[in-house]
Amino acid sequence: MSRWIQEGDNVDITNEREKGTFDTERLSAWIHGGTDVLKRRREILEFVKSVDDFKDPVPIEFLSREERILNNARKVVAMTDNTDQIDGSDFFGEGMYYQALTMGRDLHAMSLHYVMFIPTLQGQTDDEQLDEWLTKAISRAVVGTYAQTELGHGTNLSKLETTATYDPATEEFVLNSPTITAAKWWPGGLGKSSNYAVVVAQLYTKGECKGPHPFIVQLREDDTHLPLKGIRLGDIGPKLGINGNDNGFLLFDKVRIPRKHLLMRYAKVKPDGTYVAPAHSKLGYGTMVFVRSIMIKDQSTQLAAAATIATRYASVRRQGEITPGKGEVQILDYQTQQFRVFPQLARAFAFMAAATEIRDLYMTVTEQLTHGNTELLAELHVLSSGLKSVVSWDTAQGIEQCRLACGGHGYSQASGFPEIYGYAVGGCTYEGENLVMLLQVARFLMRAAEEVRKGTAKLADIGAYIGRTGAKSSRLTTHHHYTDVQLVEDLEHAARKQVFRAYDRLKKAQQHLKPEDAWNSVSVELAKASRWHVRVYLVKNFLHKVSLAPQDLKFVLVDVARLYAYDIITSSIGAFLEDGYMTSNQMNEIKEGIYECLAKIRPNAVSLVDSWDYDDKELKSVLGRRDGNVYPALLEWAQNSQLNKTEVLPSHTKYLGPMMKDARSKL
Amino acid sequence: MSRWIQEGDNVDITNEREKGTFDTERLSAWIHGGTDVLKRRREILEFVKSVDDFKDPVPIEFLSREERILNNARKVVAMTDNTDQIDGSDFFGEGMYYQALTMGRDLHAMSLHYVMFIPTLQGQTDDEQLDEWLTKAISRAVVGTYAQTELGHGTNLSKLETTATYDPATEEFVLNSPTITAAKWWPGGLGKSSNYAVVVAQLYTKGECKGPHPFIVQLREDDTHLPLKGIRLGDIGPKLGINGNDNGFLLFDKVRIPRKHLLMRYAKVKPDGTYVAPAHSKLGYGTMVFVRSIMIKDQSTQLAAAATIATRYASVRRQGEITPGKGEVQILDYQTQQFRVFPQLARAFAFMAAATEIRDLYMTVTEQLTHGNTELLAELHVLSSGLKSVVSWDTAQGIEQCRLACGGHGYSQASGFPEIYGYAVGGCTYEGENLVMLLQVARFLMRAAEEVRKGTAKLADIGAYIGRTGAKSSRLTTHHHYTDVQLVEDLEHAARKQVFRAYDRLKKAQQHLKPEDAWNSVSVELAKASRWHVRVYLVKNFLHKVSLAPQDLKFVLVDVARLYAYDIITSSIGAFLEDGYMTSNQMNEIKEGIYECLAKIRPNAVSLVDSWDYDDKELKSVLGRRDGNVYPALLEWAQNSQLNKTEVLPSHTKYLGPMMKDARSKL
Repeated sequence: MSRWIQEGDNVDITNEREKGTFDTERLSAWIHGGTDVLKRRREILEFVKSVDDFKDPVPIEFLSREERILNNARKVVAMTDNTDQIDGSDFFGEGMYYQALTMGRDLHAMSLHYVMFIPTLQGQTDDEQLDEWLTKAISRAVVGTYAQTELGHGTNLSKLETTATYDPATEEFVLNSPTITAAKWWPGGLGKSSNYAVVVAQLYTKGECKGPHPFIVQLREDDTHLPLKGIRLGDIGPKLGINGNDNGFLLFDKVRIPRKHLLMRYAKVKPDGTYVAPAHSKLGYGTMVFVRSIMIKDQSTQLAAAATIATRYASVRRQGEITPGKGEVQILDYQTQQFRVFPQLARAFAFMAAATEIRDLYMTVTEQLTHGNTELLAELHVLSSGLKSVVSWDTAQGIEQCRLACGGHGYSQASGFPEIYGYAVGGCTYEGENLVMLLQVARFLMRAAEEVRKGTAKLADIGAYIGRTGAKSSRLTTHHHYTDVQLVEDLEHAARKQVFRAYDRLKKAQQHLKPEDAWNSVSVELAKASRWHVRVYLVKNFLHKVSLAPQDLKFVLVDVARLYAYDIITSSIGAFLEDGYMTSNQMNEIKEGIYECLAKIRPNAVSLVDSWDYDDKELKSVLGRRDGNVYPALLEWAQNSQLNKTEVLPSHTKYLGPMMKDARSKL
Repeated sequence: MSRWIQEGDNVDITNEREKGTFDTERLSAWIHGGTDVLKRRREILEFVKSVDDFKDPVPIEFLSREERILNNARKVVAMTDNTDQIDGSDFFGEGMYYQALTMGRDLHAMSLHYVMFIPTLQGQTDDEQLDEWLTKAISRAVVGTYAQTELGHGTNLSKLETTATYDPATEEFVLNSPTITAAKWWPGGLGKSSNYAVVVAQLYTKGECKGPHPFIVQLREDDTHLPLKGIRLGDIGPKLGINGNDNGFLLFDKVRIPRKHLLMRYAKVKPDGTYVAPAHSKLGYGTMVFVRSIMIKDQSTQLAAAATIATRYASVRRQGEITPGKGEVQILDYQTQQFRVFPQLARAFAFMAAATEIRDLYMTVTEQLTHGNTELLAELHVLSSGLKSVVSWDTAQGIEQCRLACGGHGYSQASGFPEIYGYAVGGCTYEGENLVMLLQVARFLMRAAEEVRKGTAKLADIGAYIGRTGAKSSRLTTHHHYTDVQLVEDLEHAARKQVFRAYDRLKKAQQHLKPEDAWNSVSVELAKASRWHVRVYLVKNFLHKVSLAPQDLKFVLVDVARLYAYDIITSSIGAFLEDGYMTSNQMNEIKEGIYECLAKIRPNAVSLVDSWDYDDKELKSVLGRRDGNVYPALLEWAQNSQLNKTEVLPSHTKYLGPMMKDARSKL
């Protein structure tokens, strides 16, 4: 008996756990940041399990949208009633875990209140405003959201259509939506739950447009919760995922708000309408960088959940005989299964390692910013944008691979996958569409390439390889003697080559095209360069973290890290062969390396995923249950189906029954 | 004014249509099989639009599962009431189109009745049984499904657990589910709608197991529709897609059925229990091959729908300025957007071309089988298995690319994508899990490779390249002078190389492993070989079809076909470089070829997708509307949200409202 092995468990999964060659508990501590953190996780878990208001009446996939919204509202009030149970300052750790346990993958009415509304107030209000609004927001006297994106306008903020026109006569701003495309669209909790929002609108004063600015706006009346005059808003309808949240739309018909509702830490409008421009132009970064940093952790958590489900299920699922007469084998023994699932497991480890790093960087930058130091802000911006893009895409793909590896049952909502995928894949689009993000990273890379060519480059750490000359060919002999240093050199070679390939094509295009058209004409190559840049970072960071792990964990982590790196290389063979940097023999070595990694990971696979420390309460998957007793649980789960509440449905009574009866009478 | 251009349309989409350089109507006719077919499609469309019972009360994404089931039952009765409106013998054409128009992507209570139940009766009953059951099924006096898969058993039929034990005393079979894992699981319409099923069970007679056999079983009472004694069944709960169907579970507790309910065309059990084995062992193929053949058409239709939505939306969506001050551009002008969407468009064309081919092959085989000729059956089996696997995977990936290319709105169910994806991706798993299918194709390829090595190969058409020697290097000079013949040679080289790579590794592994373990140890390479084999077929077939097109269509189709082929090549650069078959200069030529194809397709993109002839009734996408008036339609669509029926939700009244009020009182 242990945390993972208990009486009554499926025999196959117990065997897997017993043959694991490392201490799961020690790896859990390594992943989550120490035994103290692990202890706190379990305390939080016990607390959440002990509160009735956190219990779902039935698994939430059986609830209608209306029921989910209601269920989530109860839980979010309970969650915020009990924030004293966690260390609120540790949002990346205790905060996210507490929220995942209580709210699942559905978000909730106050998601944007905490992730966007309050941080914006903290970052954009002047002192007087801060006093008033932060107090109200933190006490939950108001529930706010963040309304920026419009029906016809996303990434390109300068084209937002909502206007806020200053009227000096009454010292008010008049908010207006001049067109349908100006409707605010998407903000979480906007449709039904929030009564306030930070609204981003084009500020007009003295007949001039000063660009988009944030305003705090009351949307619904305190007592009745009805929309205020001139405000039209509602839910935007069902989505691929996160249907327990009321993402909303919002239209203004000349709504007046006091002058002081412009958030005035940076830009100001004086009573007479004089506009005072902000001293620094880009200090609005903070919130987005914060959200993107959280996203790396969040995405890695979703991918790890998927890999956990697929690995555990593959250990209890038996199908097909490898050796006739020996009985059906665990599908985890199929090489094709390992090849599908283990790279996802490896990615999840790599992304978690990056999440820790980006959290630390975010903390450092936040600390620096309080002293007005913006040194690392640009680097954090580039890195978080690039990581967000690569990690969210690989995560989405990886989740689907894990789902498909579970066969038919992966398609059932009992598996948890539809929910996990729907939730995670949104990350490819929100907080900066992935391709747009990659092209932002490419701006940095093209500047770096330009400086390298000019000999003026001063590239710190992450981008330093761009300025190096590098070898003409890989030093790889056999994969058994392939060092971390050589491996990173090879990846850096591929990345550098793509950076300069894009750069040279850009320069060439600029000779006959306008700069913007030239940029567009090479944008596929630019995006590719950015992906390489981020992948190099991911591998380096993961290898580095593994190199610091204690010996009794390192030996297993090394295989995981190698699988992650080899998978990247063999997914882009051309990048290493096309300039003769590697030979096909060398590439074959890496392919062999993959098969070896798969075989070495196989006996520890279940213990590896156990070490992520998912409780069933968090995982929410019948296929991924700790105890491996999947089939009875599936049958039990299905009994909750809405359709099983009545034996004979109206569809029979009204349509199919009469049709059959009529036909029988004519036979 | 024309079919596609109408008054009041979005100006941008009209411009796109006006600048198209070919006749959309002529391409539609080419795609669908002639002007007569096109005319019939429009007649069917008009008919469907004219029948009230086919109208959804609100877009179906706003319905609960119970409401969807009810809505679908009304429609399916109307659909089958009116089959005289179509040519029922043309299932691939009129049948599928009629069903898509009436039922959408939700399937229905009688899907398996028509696709599995009736064909199984036709294929597996003796003459007496046929008379009785086919009459009942066709008249709709019974609604049947096909119950084979079990909770714990899918692909490996020999391990099914449901038993049918013959009792000569009463001349009955006793159906029993000895364990939970024996529960029948997944059959469409089994949960609530069907009252009959073909049940596959292990036949026991005289103490011996004779393997899985099909039985016809009544599940529910004629008049009350209540389950018969000993039968426990119900819905298996919500899924990733197709939630308007009641996929079900079914458990037998010693249920007795007459001896004559064994379908006895091939195997028989005599009254005394004597088992008569079938003369031919593999004649059960028919139904699965039929379903897989339909799937190619069905999947290509889904991918084409996705490409239609993404292309049309990208033509009306403006975002970002390429040239400052010139206004926001259509996102279809971004190279990255073209690079995401156009390859999906090209795939859809390629898959449709394959669907036609496989339909013709299926027809030929069916005709041959009536004369006892099984010559082409194996080929059809291999080809349909391989195509099913490659096409369903590429389709799923392609749909998601199209969705992501639509930014945030792609995530809304208004886009249609969540429905399309959920529906299509199921195809990766049902009717033979994709990897299992690929490994079946690999068995054929390994036999072929063996014969080639032995000099005994007689490979027809599709596999002939395996036996050729081929050149040592590609004949490609520039992509402008790259002929179809050279292109196919190059793809065949890559495929052949992978076939023999897998073969050689298999032989090597067999030296020290048991055959089955050897097979498993190279299965990743085997699956890869199968994918290449299928892709070569897809390209050859598409190029061939295009080569036969009339000149006024060929010029645009050529670019589409080239994009399809180039995309395959550049996605596997290593396959062409690793043995020095291509140089990196040659590969660069192909990369340039892609950019040129993108640019050439750009002005015809909207007309190309129009030519698939989707009516809004079939497409069901606010983003993909013919008229391009997306934004007002999105706002209107959202008003249907379940959450918008009440201004203040119970979640506020019960939980969030009191929380805020309490906080306000303490401020």
